[in-house]
Amino acid sequence: MLKTMKNLFTKQELLKGNFGVEREGLRVDPKGKLSEKPHPVIFGYKMCNPYITTDFSESQLELITPAFSSTKETYKFLNALYDIVSMELEDEYLWPQSMPAIIPEDKDIPIAEFCGCEEGKIAREYREELLLKYGGKKQLISGIHYNFSFNENIIKKLYENSNKSSDYKDFKDDIYLKVTRNYLRYRWLLIYLLGCTSVVHESYNEDCVKQLDEISKGSFSNEGALSYRNSECGYKNKIDLFPSYDSVEEYVNSINKFIDEDFIDSHKELYAPIRLKAKDPKSLLKSLVSDGINYLEYRSIDINPFEKGGITLNDLHFINVFNLFLLIEDESSYENWQQEALNNQNIIATRGQHDVELIKDGKSISKVQWGLEILNKVKVINDELQLGYEDIIEETRKRVEDYKETYTYKIIEKVKEEGYINAHLNIAKKYKDLAYNNRFKLEGYEDLELSTQILMKESIKRGIKTELIDRSDNFISLTKDDKIEYVKQATKTSKDNYVTVLAMENKVVTKKILQKSNIRVPDGSEFDNIEDAISEIDNFTNKPIVIKPKSTNFGTGISIFPQGASEEDVTSAFEIAFKYDTTVLVEEFINGKEYRFLVIGDKVVGILHRVPANAVGDGVKSIRELIEIKNQSPLRGKGYKTPLEKIDLDENAALFLKHRGLDFDYIPKKDEVVYLRENSNISTGGDSIDYTDDIPQIFKDIAVKSSQAIGANICGVDMMIDDYANENSEYGIIELNFNPAIHIHSYPYIGTEREIAKEILDILEFI
Amino acid sequence: MLKTMKNLFTKQELLKGNFGVEREGLRVDPKGKLSEKPHPVIFGYKMCNPYITTDFSESQLELITPAFSSTKETYKFLNALYDIVSMELEDEYLWPQSMPAIIPEDKDIPIAEFCGCEEGKIAREYREELLLKYGGKKQLISGIHYNFSFNENIIKKLYENSNKSSDYKDFKDDIYLKVTRNYLRYRWLLIYLLGCTSVVHESYNEDCVKQLDEISKGSFSNEGALSYRNSECGYKNKIDLFPSYDSVEEYVNSINKFIDEDFIDSHKELYAPIRLKAKDPKSLLKSLVSDGINYLEYRSIDINPFEKGGITLNDLHFINVFNLFLLIEDESSYENWQQEALNNQNIIATRGQHDVELIKDGKSISKVQWGLEILNKVKVINDELQLGYEDIIEETRKRVEDYKETYTYKIIEKVKEEGYINAHLNIAKKYKDLAYNNRFKLEGYEDLELSTQILMKESIKRGIKTELIDRSDNFISLTKDDKIEYVKQATKTSKDNYVTVLAMENKVVTKKILQKSNIRVPDGSEFDNIEDAISEIDNFTNKPIVIKPKSTNFGTGISIFPQGASEEDVTSAFEIAFKYDTTVLVEEFINGKEYRFLVIGDKVVGILHRVPANAVGDGVKSIRELIEIKNQSPLRGKGYKTPLEKIDLDENAALFLKHRGLDFDYIPKKDEVVYLRENSNISTGGDSIDYTDDIPQIFKDIAVKSSQAIGANICGVDMMIDDYANENSEYGIIELNFNPAIHIHSYPYIGTEREIAKEILDILEFI
Repeated sequence: MLKTMKNLFTKQELLKGNFGVEREGLRVDPKGKLSEKPHPVIFGYKMCNPYITTDFSESQLELITPAFSSTKETYKFLNALYDIVSMELEDEYLWPQSMPAIIPEDKDIPIAEFCGCEEGKIAREYREELLLKYGGKKQLISGIHYNFSFNENIIKKLYENSNKSSDYKDFKDDIYLKVTRNYLRYRWLLIYLLGCTSVVHESYNEDCVKQLDEISKGSFSNEGALSYRNSECGYKNKIDLFPSYDSVEEYVNSINKFIDEDFIDSHKELYAPIRLKAKDPKSLLKSLVSDGINYLEYRSIDINPFEKGGITLNDLHFINVFNLFLLIEDESSYENWQQEALNNQNIIATRGQHDVELIKDGKSISKVQWGLEILNKVKVINDELQLGYEDIIEETRKRVEDYKETYTYKIIEKVKEEGYINAHLNIAKKYKDLAYNNRFKLEGYEDLELSTQILMKESIKRGIKTELIDRSDNFISLTKDDKIEYVKQATKTSKDNYVTVLAMENKVVTKKILQKSNIRVPDGSEFDNIEDAISEIDNFTNKPIVIKPKSTNFGTGISIFPQGASEEDVTSAFEIAFKYDTTVLVEEFINGKEYRFLVIGDKVVGILHRVPANAVGDGVKSIRELIEIKNQSPLRGKGYKTPLEKIDLDENAALFLKHRGLDFDYIPKKDEVVYLRENSNISTGGDSIDYTDDIPQIFKDIAVKSSQAIGANICGVDMMIDDYANENSEYGIIELNFNPAIHIHSYPYIGTEREIAKEILDILEFI
Repeated sequence: MLKTMKNLFTKQELLKGNFGVEREGLRVDPKGKLSEKPHPVIFGYKMCNPYITTDFSESQLELITPAFSSTKETYKFLNALYDIVSMELEDEYLWPQSMPAIIPEDKDIPIAEFCGCEEGKIAREYREELLLKYGGKKQLISGIHYNFSFNENIIKKLYENSNKSSDYKDFKDDIYLKVTRNYLRYRWLLIYLLGCTSVVHESYNEDCVKQLDEISKGSFSNEGALSYRNSECGYKNKIDLFPSYDSVEEYVNSINKFIDEDFIDSHKELYAPIRLKAKDPKSLLKSLVSDGINYLEYRSIDINPFEKGGITLNDLHFINVFNLFLLIEDESSYENWQQEALNNQNIIATRGQHDVELIKDGKSISKVQWGLEILNKVKVINDELQLGYEDIIEETRKRVEDYKETYTYKIIEKVKEEGYINAHLNIAKKYKDLAYNNRFKLEGYEDLELSTQILMKESIKRGIKTELIDRSDNFISLTKDDKIEYVKQATKTSKDNYVTVLAMENKVVTKKILQKSNIRVPDGSEFDNIEDAISEIDNFTNKPIVIKPKSTNFGTGISIFPQGASEEDVTSAFEIAFKYDTTVLVEEFINGKEYRFLVIGDKVVGILHRVPANAVGDGVKSIRELIEIKNQSPLRGKGYKTPLEKIDLDENAALFLKHRGLDFDYIPKKDEVVYLRENSNISTGGDSIDYTDDIPQIFKDIAVKSSQAIGANICGVDMMIDDYANENSEYGIIELNFNPAIHIHSYPYIGTEREIAKEILDILEFI
């Protein structure tokens, strides 16, 4: 089969698939105690948020990634979900370990709350039954569920290349059934490699704790343990249930039989290490038979405390090639394989760090030997298909050869030092800090504009389904219930009409429309040729004016005369401007500072003022040192990946200082502000300062009126104000922007971070 | 004063002003008889259309230009209005002469109809009173009213430069009063130059006709007549009324006195050669006193039958400099000047072609001598202020020196030959043909895109106020009552939302959205690098496909393989495409022809198919001759000023024919179609063929569904259809266009001209 695959597929095809991860996690208080607070309201109703919900307990979060075609995307999204959730937990933490933190007795464990609707009642009742049957503490165990299907093209091509003795659906089912059986056979290796639950807290299930030794205060384990979650201490059915995996029909029949015989209440209660999944999850068994197997769910993976998301990218990659091994590896005809596989799991789970003996087709084989055998085969697959995972397989081999390389061993070491609760709390705190430092970006989407990342993040948080329609265009869709909205670059939406945008794009049109509404804009004239302009020149001499090409960008061709200029200078300014455009505008110069008002709907949601790159003295440090410290802020980066840019002590800055008799070694006095360049662009290290609460309402009203005059719903209003503290101050609207950045308001250098993304979702009517 | 002006102003400033023209004209039937049909419904309610209304009679149209800052714009717009009206008169004509055509007796003259509202009743009653008082026939006289004010900056500067002994309003009033008095004194010259009413029809007012001689059948005149409209035969008050022009107050008082003494019913009934106009026309006299004079209305100008609009551009230019003469020329203190001026008018009107004697300040002076005196002064003004009108003044001098150069003389000559009715009917027919040949464009706006011209034309016709907001951007506003809509390039409106437009702009996004709605688009894949593309190459070999850069234009980088291609060819096609973009699309090739469906709202308003430049044989003429004839169509032009382009018999065409063993001298058989190039672009002489009525509803439904899927209201849907006659034919949507041209549907080469502009006004909710 390997040869067939080598002939049929490229690496790119083989590594594509559909990968999704569900990761549970307890909310805990600052002392590591299970949270008593309800599920945060911001995540919306838990049954409707496709990304963030609860599992058994109200305090048990479940993070769900969509299915991505590469494991890397899934990995990144999982991390992003962790960040999103972490930021909303106030003083709580997301517990980074499958086995619970400090938990109360069953009666005090808060079962997930649902609405009073039929669906909600059923969900609640189901959990209450589980509590009675299995006890609440075991229900608090969290894990990683890995959902996976092959790229459909692979199965199609394999079918085309087969003798087609069955139909396509059966062919496909057979493939997944084989993978499933092999998964069961070889799952012990995954548990060994990924097991992270070798310690439990004293508050955990008494039957379990009492068999173990205290390895540090309140932390219990036994020698060699690897994954209590996958052991008898973990969460499993009352008796061992072995469904049939011979065919989908038999699988379904066997489950129905378990139900009939009252072992379980429904297929959901079958806690198998792997599940077959169908197109229609609501009638799963029926759908399995009629539609076939849609994907598989691997359920043996522990949360890895050393990874924010709970599983490393390398491990996800390894599973990727492991899946191909499961597909390719021939099966033995050994009959009692399910019981044998379960036995092997138990051995690994409870004593896997030791050099244990496993049973393979009835014969004893050492863990290391068998593990290496499997890895050798995995290696051959990797090499033959040129998958490029040799480093990962090599690293895995080391874990097999030396148990001290396992996660579980490292956890025990850490717990011995810090104690079970503190060890994990310290990790959780670190992840929470990371989330804060990442707050302006969405992991896995750093190539998108910040504004888009911020909007996506807010949408995901609120359970609005967020999809990239065109990545390079920052074009996304937002879906909730029957509602779909497309958004480009965060602020280009359906809420603005096209001609309003075109009016904003055109300075002359903008001015005409604002003037019609009696909004103050710089007075001015427009000329199509220099003769006409010169003919009226005495209207422009010795007055504060700006002369600029109509469609200029980045200030080219603009002359500014704040104090007015002679006929000669004005003439030459016209000549310059006409070099850049066939139409030239003359506008009065309005005194003051420029403020960006972000208007969404009928309100100003943010006001920002920019100042040039600068150092603020403490009387001790040099400019060089001050800037070095300033540049350490996570808000500052390079290449527009952060809300602010690092300040470059470049030639321009040096020259600017030199003109003022200073250099980088100058030590500014306390509170002395030393500017490093003329322009206030963020791109050259400028600072953004929030003024939303400082500017009087009268100017906000003008900004809203301007936006409404042109018919905009999302509008960046650039206003010059001479003295904002004075309500009667001179002002003038310089420009309206139809694609205002939101990140500058969301994450300013100084001042309150504004929840702009929320405002956009509001105007898009996502409630 | 001339010296002052020379110092203060440039030519550009002096030639700017506010110029508007009102031009009346009778609707006549194909025999020259006054129309009995009502005012065309298409022009909307006559009291609301700012451009096209009726005057006294239901059959008396009045065309009104807005005030433009240059006479040229006014002139062009007047011609455009003529075209617009002419196109809507079915078998009728717009009578090109101030004196009426064949008119019935008073009782049968259709007085303008108005709605039953209060305003309408007043308008109707007013006309009924006029009929009784002055007789209906004289009311049918039509004329040119020239509305004019100086550029406000001129008056302001003159004021700044004065001793400021009065306030600005009085200063301005004094200027206009001086111009008014001088206009009255010198109006005889304008009447002489522009008089065109030296003949009347036998059906005209009996008292007038009986004094005249029959110069051709039914055509009456007397020796030397120049302007009956300005004579006793014309339309005037029962007795000569001379209001005071000493001040605005006295003017208003004198008119009120006329009313009190029952000479007239209201100021509207004072048929003076000039009127003072105020800001608020509804309370004119009050507004004159409180707001001052806003502009002047010259009422002595006859319609010039030799000009479509009724007045030549040169004459408008002449009046321009004549106005400056009226402003500059010192006034005599001669007391009886109003009576004298009226006498002079009468002499010129009835005997002006002769070498008559006029009276100037009580002293006799010959027409020619006085005329030349005035023109010399006008010439000095022109020269001193460098206005550049010397040629026009020279031409005017000739008309003064030789009466045979006057319009009126030429009219008499023509009438003698063809008879009064036919002479004018023939002219009207010629103008109607011109209007038809101009139907796709708006005179004065030929620099705009055709689609914008067509939309403006339709708006003007329907009385929607149409203004250019930014000419170079094709950005206009449409206003009716309180409603304002901005439109760019005819189809960029408020009715489409921004993100819908952005979705249409992006091929990948468009496809994804259409696919979601189960609309057939070419299947395809998207690749961000050539390795990925090559890895799937066997999916693309030997299949009909198109490989193209994602954001290509004009076909660069596209490879089309209708019959499929080898791996090698597909690979090189990928290589080519990746040279033009970082993202490359592979799409299945869909067989068939491409049709442009124009969807507006929920209907298809036009379907167009383009074919390459071609000649259709008649078995006699060569390709060269056939193309020469084809190129004569007014629809064909150069440089996108017409709906179609002239076919160029260039090297490409020659080469194309050569490959087929043909040349330009080849004589195609009857009905043989010889194509001259591969591509069907209109820009290279392609033909557009309307299929709106031919394509089955099913494809129209698909087009509408596509437009709606993306949320568009105005959308060009490009659909490939294999065989449109077959409702089950293969099809696929190639592209959606957010700025579809409308002129291609409005004026196709073959097929029905579709009223697309009306559809756009409908979707913009202009009723």
